Amino acid sequence: MQTLIWKNLSCEEKRQALTRPAISGSQSIVEAVNQIKDAVLSRGDQALFELTEKFDKVKLDSLTVSAEQIEQAAQRVPASLKQAIQNAKANIEKFHTAQIPPAIDLETQNGVRCQVLTRPINRVGLYIPGGSAPLFSTVLMLAIPAKIAGCKRIVLCTPPPIADEILYTAQLCGVQTIYAIGGSQAVIAMAFGTQTVAKVDKIFGPGNAFVTEAKRQVSQSVNGAAIDMQAGPSEVLVLADEFADADFVASDLLSQAEHGADSQVILVTPSQALAQAVEQAIERQLAKLPRKQTACKALEHSRIFIAESLEQAVEISNEYAPEHLVVQVNNARSLLDQLDNAGSIFLGAYSPESMGDYASGTNHVLPTYGYTRTTSSLGLADFCKRMTVQELTPQGFQDLAPTVIAMAEAEQLEAHKQAVAVRLAKMPQNQP
Amino acid sequence: MQTLIWKNLSCEEKRQALTRPAISGSQSIVEAVNQIKDAVLSRGDQALFELTEKFDKVKLDSLTVSAEQIEQAAQRVPASLKQAIQNAKANIEKFHTAQIPPAIDLETQNGVRCQVLTRPINRVGLYIPGGSAPLFSTVLMLAIPAKIAGCKRIVLCTPPPIADEILYTAQLCGVQTIYAIGGSQAVIAMAFGTQTVAKVDKIFGPGNAFVTEAKRQVSQSVNGAAIDMQAGPSEVLVLADEFADADFVASDLLSQAEHGADSQVILVTPSQALAQAVEQAIERQLAKLPRKQTACKALEHSRIFIAESLEQAVEISNEYAPEHLVVQVNNARSLLDQLDNAGSIFLGAYSPESMGDYASGTNHVLPTYGYTRTTSSLGLADFCKRMTVQELTPQGFQDLAPTVIAMAEAEQLEAHKQAVAVRLAKMPQNQP
Repeated sequence: MQTLIWKNLSCEEKRQALTRPAISGSQSIVEAVNQIKDAVLSRGDQALFELTEKFDKVKLDSLTVSAEQIEQAAQRVPASLKQAIQNAKANIEKFHTAQIPPAIDLETQNGVRCQVLTRPINRVGLYIPGGSAPLFSTVLMLAIPAKIAGCKRIVLCTPPPIADEILYTAQLCGVQTIYAIGGSQAVIAMAFGTQTVAKVDKIFGPGNAFVTEAKRQVSQSVNGAAIDMQAGPSEVLVLADEFADADFVASDLLSQAEHGADSQVILVTPSQALAQAVEQAIERQLAKLPRKQTACKALEHSRIFIAESLEQAVEISNEYAPEHLVVQVNNARSLLDQLDNAGSIFLGAYSPESMGDYASGTNHVLPTYGYTRTTSSLGLADFCKRMTVQELTPQGFQDLAPTVIAMAEAEQLEAHKQAVAVRLAKMPQNQP
Repeated sequence: MQTLIWKNLSCEEKRQALTRPAISGSQSIVEAVNQIKDAVLSRGDQALFELTEKFDKVKLDSLTVSAEQIEQAAQRVPASLKQAIQNAKANIEKFHTAQIPPAIDLETQNGVRCQVLTRPINRVGLYIPGGSAPLFSTVLMLAIPAKIAGCKRIVLCTPPPIADEILYTAQLCGVQTIYAIGGSQAVIAMAFGTQTVAKVDKIFGPGNAFVTEAKRQVSQSVNGAAIDMQAGPSEVLVLADEFADADFVASDLLSQAEHGADSQVILVTPSQALAQAVEQAIERQLAKLPRKQTACKALEHSRIFIAESLEQAVEISNEYAPEHLVVQVNNARSLLDQLDNAGSIFLGAYSPESMGDYASGTNHVLPTYGYTRTTSSLGLADFCKRMTVQELTPQGFQDLAPTVIAMAEAEQLEAHKQAVAVRLAKMPQNQP
């Protein structure tokens, strides 16, 4: 990791130092996804079977996973892991249930009643990547809030062969249909529908560059589907002072670095001594990691910033706007009011990122790439939409009418004014 | 308006009948915006001056409107209009203040504290179109929630010459800086910044096809800015039964139709008699409208659907997913639970759309083009982002550790597991 003394950097160097590695939105990926989209739109299920055979090397009999297959898979999941998953589920459920919004229903003035109604998005599609490690924790993070929100249809796509843990967790969380479809073809099938795959309104979940590109495309298409958020490589920023345990800090940096070669991990500290101790701890811990190569690559474009003070360290974090922000300083909670632009914040020595990744209750689907400045961490709200309602009594209408007439006149919208005038003329007391 | 009997339509005809006119996202617009972007990015303020002279025919001395100019403009706004604007402001403020979310702070299990923190988006840019009618009502709808949210910097762009009402309203609502810049160049300047225009994090507001395309482009650029929502032509669906007043219904349809030739207005009713009466009322009212031509064009692609029942009428509305939904049926509130996919709902005879457009308190910035299925009507939440926080006590950490270790193992993320293990090993009672 490169160590930089913040105060020695010029403005431009500071900006550069906080810049994330470029996301390679290559034209070849765009074209590949375009081709897959054409295939799925024109040939539906047949294309999905073929693409699955081509990319996943699996010849499917059915795109839909049967109840029997799910049942059998669930039986194979060890009891101890089931218990862990259920523990995580209970915490995630509790935290997301607490996000159910209160009713908003008030009179803004006498006889003018205004409300906010929160309703579930009807049909949601969850995408879970395949690969060697079955990301069943992401099933929890997506399916639990969908269920609490009351989404009427919850489907899940994941490439075959599907890990037992994913099938078990999906069933446990109330996913109604599981399709053995992966990659960009899964996103396209859910966005537009095929003979077997029913169209959904919004698509959630992580994925590789093809999945990300497919999500971007369907979100830009009028007949496509909404998406949860724009995705970039995962990242962590650890803010630590001289009281932090270097082993703890190193382990948090590494648990992010092992996610992918494009992950970015950053340490910001006012303590040179801690920075050195962390570097040594990383060396020690790295040696034992099975995903050492991946972590090493991620560390290559990762950085340590030496700040002049804790206040400056906070400024650097707010400027970087990290997905995960781990705060290992004395009395970490006292910094909370100053911290901004972070997806999820982990306070204190005993709140490593792993806790939130799996089981504390918070959601691990978070904005990356600086989007935390404007985008929320995934929550119940993302599975809902808000509608407003207004109802005016005749008296409320009459009281507000002059205001609306004056404004519509000034905006030269005569029909808007007439909609008020035509009613005023028919008010009982104004009738001849 | 074309009248269609719903039950006589085939599935495909139903789908077609509810399809919106295509949005012309023409390549020439994309290219024009690209050129403007290049100009603003390479030549900054100078390009803005030139583009303003070219498109708005105004030679500016300064891009920023001075405090003196604002003061003078405010003095020219008639007192009666000021009072109307202040009345609307009070209602909008009340409704959006009611949207301040409650604190979410709980223990998901003993010693595992989780929170949702809601923070303002720091820098927001509001866009207000120019043209003959000064849309100062949109200033209210954007600036009031930005102020309540606590956005640190609120700027506004609108093309010169700027109407007095816009300057007055912007100042009244706490907008800090007003730039006399319009069109796609305004969006690009706010998204990327120039010498004079400071970069913002998120851009709000309506605009023509160039503004919409610029918003799309900056929202897709990593260094750009977030945007409020994808925009399409404005639309209303009126759901009415035989008890509705045909004049009222006609006036609501027309107040939407006058917005633009591409507006869509739809009447859904189980009553043939009402449908005919509304058509006649439209003829009568249309004759008197100054924006008659615009409204006529909009009516050309607008429709009346005759439903078999009120239930079917509700289904049609939910399927169309209108921006504005006006409900003029006996006991309108009783339908509310069944209504879905609408931006804003207007209940009963005395709640015309104009009321919400200006002054009831609800926001008039709403999803169009069917996006109400997944997108919320603009509200306080759009000026904020949610971050999550977790803090575990040593005991809470120890209790949850086995769950996280089991899950990290199953996902083969060893470093995630180690971040827990390294802490467990150092717990006081586990020390040698």
